[in-house]
Amino acid sequence: MNHADLLERTHYCTEITHLEPGTTIRVAGWVRKRRDLGNLVFIDLYDRSGILQVVFDPVRNPDLVVLAQEMKRESVLTVEGTISMRPDEAVNQSMKTGRIELIASRVKLHSTSRVPPFHLIGDQEVNEELRLKYRYLDLRRSEMFRILSVRHQTYQVVRKFYSDNGFIEVTTPHLIRSTPEGARDFLVPSRLYPGRCYALPQSPQILKQILMIGGVDRYFQIVKCFRDEDSRADRQPEFSQIDVEMSFVTRDTLFRIHEELMAVVYREVLGIEIQTPFPRMTYSDALVDYGSDKPDIRFDLKLRDATDVLAGSGYQLTEDAIRNGGGVRGVVYPGGAGLSRKQIGDLERIVRSRGPGGLITFKTGDGGELTGSPLGKHLEPERRLQLVQRFDARPGDLICLAAGGFEETAWALGDLRLEIARRGNMTGDSLKFLWVIDFPLFEYVPQESRYQAMHHPFTAPLAQDENLLDSNPALCRAQAYDLVLNGVELGGGSVRIFREDLQCRIFKALGLTKQEAENRFGFFLEALRYGTPPHCGIAFGMDRLIMMLAGTDNLRDVIAFPKTLQAACLLTNAPSPATSEQMKMLGLKSLIENSGKKETT
Amino acid sequence: MNHADLLERTHYCTEITHLEPGTTIRVAGWVRKRRDLGNLVFIDLYDRSGILQVVFDPVRNPDLVVLAQEMKRESVLTVEGTISMRPDEAVNQSMKTGRIELIASRVKLHSTSRVPPFHLIGDQEVNEELRLKYRYLDLRRSEMFRILSVRHQTYQVVRKFYSDNGFIEVTTPHLIRSTPEGARDFLVPSRLYPGRCYALPQSPQILKQILMIGGVDRYFQIVKCFRDEDSRADRQPEFSQIDVEMSFVTRDTLFRIHEELMAVVYREVLGIEIQTPFPRMTYSDALVDYGSDKPDIRFDLKLRDATDVLAGSGYQLTEDAIRNGGGVRGVVYPGGAGLSRKQIGDLERIVRSRGPGGLITFKTGDGGELTGSPLGKHLEPERRLQLVQRFDARPGDLICLAAGGFEETAWALGDLRLEIARRGNMTGDSLKFLWVIDFPLFEYVPQESRYQAMHHPFTAPLAQDENLLDSNPALCRAQAYDLVLNGVELGGGSVRIFREDLQCRIFKALGLTKQEAENRFGFFLEALRYGTPPHCGIAFGMDRLIMMLAGTDNLRDVIAFPKTLQAACLLTNAPSPATSEQMKMLGLKSLIENSGKKETT
Repeated sequence: MNHADLLERTHYCTEITHLEPGTTIRVAGWVRKRRDLGNLVFIDLYDRSGILQVVFDPVRNPDLVVLAQEMKRESVLTVEGTISMRPDEAVNQSMKTGRIELIASRVKLHSTSRVPPFHLIGDQEVNEELRLKYRYLDLRRSEMFRILSVRHQTYQVVRKFYSDNGFIEVTTPHLIRSTPEGARDFLVPSRLYPGRCYALPQSPQILKQILMIGGVDRYFQIVKCFRDEDSRADRQPEFSQIDVEMSFVTRDTLFRIHEELMAVVYREVLGIEIQTPFPRMTYSDALVDYGSDKPDIRFDLKLRDATDVLAGSGYQLTEDAIRNGGGVRGVVYPGGAGLSRKQIGDLERIVRSRGPGGLITFKTGDGGELTGSPLGKHLEPERRLQLVQRFDARPGDLICLAAGGFEETAWALGDLRLEIARRGNMTGDSLKFLWVIDFPLFEYVPQESRYQAMHHPFTAPLAQDENLLDSNPALCRAQAYDLVLNGVELGGGSVRIFREDLQCRIFKALGLTKQEAENRFGFFLEALRYGTPPHCGIAFGMDRLIMMLAGTDNLRDVIAFPKTLQAACLLTNAPSPATSEQMKMLGLKSLIENSGKKETT
Repeated sequence: MNHADLLERTHYCTEITHLEPGTTIRVAGWVRKRRDLGNLVFIDLYDRSGILQVVFDPVRNPDLVVLAQEMKRESVLTVEGTISMRPDEAVNQSMKTGRIELIASRVKLHSTSRVPPFHLIGDQEVNEELRLKYRYLDLRRSEMFRILSVRHQTYQVVRKFYSDNGFIEVTTPHLIRSTPEGARDFLVPSRLYPGRCYALPQSPQILKQILMIGGVDRYFQIVKCFRDEDSRADRQPEFSQIDVEMSFVTRDTLFRIHEELMAVVYREVLGIEIQTPFPRMTYSDALVDYGSDKPDIRFDLKLRDATDVLAGSGYQLTEDAIRNGGGVRGVVYPGGAGLSRKQIGDLERIVRSRGPGGLITFKTGDGGELTGSPLGKHLEPERRLQLVQRFDARPGDLICLAAGGFEETAWALGDLRLEIARRGNMTGDSLKFLWVIDFPLFEYVPQESRYQAMHHPFTAPLAQDENLLDSNPALCRAQAYDLVLNGVELGGGSVRIFREDLQCRIFKALGLTKQEAENRFGFFLEALRYGTPPHCGIAFGMDRLIMMLAGTDNLRDVIAFPKTLQAACLLTNAPSPATSEQMKMLGLKSLIENSGKKETT
C-alpha cells in the first residue's frame, strides 16, 4: 500500500528517543538490512543520523509485509508508524535507538538499489578505488558522514571566530595571472584572448596583500587553491586553505589570535580544552634538537651531538665526517638493545635515505657497557662513559649515531626519532602545538645555481639580518613561522615586506633581473608605492586540520570528492579528452595523437 | 621623532567617541588630507571605520609638526595621542568623530605614497578602468568598504541560516569533468594526462545530486562557478553562487525555507523586515500579465489582450497578426498622452527590437476619445469604448498596442512596461519577492533543430505533463522555479529527476543518443541506480543578491577583484601569454603566432 503523499520525514531516524511510545512519526532513509521472522519483517532503516528498526507486522498491516519482504538493501523509503518500546530481550544497548522500534503503518518506496559493490556497514577495509568510484555509496557509511560533519562544523567555527575578531571575508578570484614561482600553476586558456591563459591560484598571496594596501585591515577566507605538482601522499591538486592577512599588528598578536582560534576550534568541534599560549622554537633549534622543521614534541628523544666525544677516535667513518666539517650526532632508542640485526637494518635504511653513509649503533648493557659497533674498539673507557652520559642511555637502550654534515645527519636522525617513537607508541593522545620561527629566508637550489624563497618572495627578513641579504643570503633569517601540531604542519605565514625597495632587493637576491621582476610582479611593486601598511599573514591547510580533528590519516577521507594520487577523479573519470571543437575555440592544438576526439569518452 | 615600537592601534579611528577626553590611544591609518594653519597642523587620518582629525601642536611637540608638515596624502601612520574635545566653532556635525580630535604625542611614519591617480574622497565619477587598475586605492574609498562589509555579513548570515537548519556545508571540486551543455566550460589542461582536460564547474549540479544519493540529505555551499560566455553587462566569467540541495522534501518546504532565508538576510544585514510567504505565479501567467519571466510586481501595469476588440477592424497590421494566429496586446502608459513624437519613437524601438513590426498608440482625451493612430479610423465608437475600458485608460493616458505572435508581443510589451515604470518612477522602495513556477521543461533551438533544457537536463517534469515528453515536449512543464525580487532573478532551481528511466527519456528528448548520454553522463546514470532519494534544490547568484542588498547597480562593485566585460583583470593584467615551456609541459601548441613567449609580459 503506497501513499503518494508520503515524502517528508517528521524526524531523523535517531532523533526520536525523547518521544512518548505511541507517537506517530514519519522517517525517511535507506534500507540497511532486512530480517524475515516468518511473517514478521524487521528492517533497519538509516539516514545520516543513524539507524532505526522498523517492524512490519502481518496482523496490523498484511499488505506492508509483502512489500517489506521484497525490499532490497539500499532501497529508499518514507515510513509512517508509531514508536513502540522493544521487548526486554530485544533491547540493543549499542544502538542509540536500541530500546525502541517503529511499527510501520504506511510506507512509500521511492526507489530501489542494485546490489552495492561493497559493504556499507562496519569497519572492514574496502578497496579505495572502489570507494572513490562509488563515492555516493561510500558517503552513506556513518564514518564518512561523521567526517563531513566535523568538516562542516570546523568551517562554521573558523569563520565565526574571524568574523567575531573583526576580520572581513573577501572572495578573491580564481582566474588570475600566472606568476610562476616554485610549484606549478594550473593554466586556463582564454577563449576571448587566444594564446593567453589565466592561472588558478596556488594561494591568494598577492591579492590579500593588495587588500591590505586597500585598507581592509583584517582579511580572511577559506579558499580553494591549486598546485599542479607531482603526486604526494599528503597532497591533492586542489586543496582548501584558511587564508588570513592583518595590518598594523606584530607577529605576537597574530600568534595570540591563532592560538585562540585553535582553542576555539578544539573546544567547539571536539569539546577539548587545549593549552595556550603555544611554545615557540627557532628553526635552528628544531633542526638541532629534533632533526625536523616540524618537531613532534609529544615525546622528548632529543638529538645529541657526540662529535666532541668521538673526535680523534681513529674510526674512519666518524673521522672523515669530522674532518669534512661535519660531525657525529645521535638519538637514543629506549629499550632498543634487544633489536634484531634485521630491525636495526630497517633503521639504517631510514638514515641512509637522507644521505649519511650508515648508522652506528651501541647497545647499552646492564653495567652501562657498550657493545655492537666496531667503533667501540676505538673508544677508551672514559669516552664510552661520556657517550652513555651524553645520551642518558640506560641499560637496554640503543644509542644510534649518524656521521656526516649537519643538515644530512639532522634530517636523518629526525626521521629515525619519529620511527623510534612510532615503534614505542610514545605519542600518547596529547595535543602539542608549537610555533616554529625564524626560518631561513632562502634555500639554495644547486641544480639551478640560485636561491629560492623558502616561504615565498614576499616574506620580510629579520630586521637584524637585512644586511646579510647581499653579503650572505644563506644566513639571512626570515620573519616566517609555521604552526605545528604533533609533528604535522598545520600552516605557516610571515611578516611581509611592505617597502618597495626591500621587495626589489629580494627579487634581485632571487636572481630576477629588474626587467623580469617588472614583468612578473610590476603591478604589485606599483601597488607598494601608494601607502602600504605593515602587514603579516598566515594560511592553514584546512584539509590537514580536519584530518587532525577527525582523527583520520587519509587525506582523501576528509574531502567529499577527492582525486587519486594520480590526480584523477574515479567517480566522474576526470580529466577527460577535450573535443577538437573545444580546443579549436581556445586556439590550441594538442601535440598528443588522437587526444582531441570528437566526443568525450 | 619616530618610535620603532609604534605599530598597533588601540582603537579604530571612529570607535573612540565613547572614551573620556584625556584618554591616551593609538590609531593607525592613512592621511586623507592635511591643513597647515601656521604652525598648527591638522591631519585627517582614516582607516576602514572612518576619519579622525589629528592635531600637531607646535607648543607641545615641535618635532612632530615638522614631520606633519611634510606628510603626503595616503601616507601610512601610527599615531599616539590624547583625545580632546574640539572647540565649539570647530565641531563638525557630519562626522562621527566631529566633536573630538586627537592631540598627537608620538608618531610613526610607516610609508609614504605617490600622488593617487584619482580622488578617494566624495562621490565624483572616476573612470572605471582607472579604478580597476588601482583597485587597492579604490578599495580605500568608504563606499567600497561598506559594500565589502555587506558582502562579508551576507556570507556569514547565509551560512549560519543553513547551518541552523540542518544543512551541511560540503566543498565540491573545482577540477571536474567537462560535460558540455549550454554555456561553455573553461578547460584546464592536465599535465599528468597530456591531451586531457579538467573543466571548471558551471555549477556543482551533478555533484550535489550525488551528495543526495550519498545520504547527505541537506547540502549547502557558497561556491565559485565559472562560465566562458561572451560578455554581458551583468555577468562575470567567475561568480559566486549559494548552492543548495535537499532530499525528502516537497517544493513547498524548499520555498518556505528560502522565504525564511531572505527574511533573515534582510533583517540581519539591513534591519529590514520583509513579508513572507512570497506570492507565486506561473511562468505562463507571468508572460501573459507581465511579458516577463521575472516580473517586477512593485507596480501593476498589467498587459491586456485586445485581440477580441480589434478583430475584424480591417486594419492591416492587426488583421495580419490575428490571421497568423497571433493577436493584439497592449499596456497603458499613465499620463503618456503628452509624449512627443520622438518619445513615442523611443518606445517603438523597444517594441521592434523584440520582433513586432511596430507600436500602435492611442492618446486618451478628456472625454475618453482616442486619437493618434490610423487604426482609430477603423474602429466603431463602441470598439473604441471597449478599448478604453479594456485598459482602464483615463484621460491623458497613452494606450500602447503591439500586434504579432504571443511570445514576441509579450516580451516586447514586457520591456515596454518596465520602461514606462522607469520613466514614471513607479517602483518606489518596496521589496517585492515572487516565485515564478512551472517553467517550460524545454525550449526549442531553431538553429540546431532540437530542444534544449530550459533549466538543466536534471529537472523533473510536472507529474501531469510526463506523458507529453515524447508526444509534445514543447508543452511539457517543469517542476522548476525562480525567485525574483523587484524584477531581478535572484536564483532558481527545480525538483530533480531521481529515476534513471525518466532521466534517460529526458536525455533522449534532448537529442542525445544512448551512447552520447552514456559517454557524458554514464557515471551519473549509474549513481541513480543505487537508491536515489527524491530531492530538489536551488541556487542563488550571490553577487546579484549582494548588489540588491548594497543598493548598487554595478556588479563589479560587489566583487573585490572583478574582471572587465572583456574578461580581463586590469590590476594584474590577466590573462597573460603562457610561456612556451608551460605549453610544452601540457602537451599543447598554440595556433596563435608569437603567443608562447619565453617570458610573460
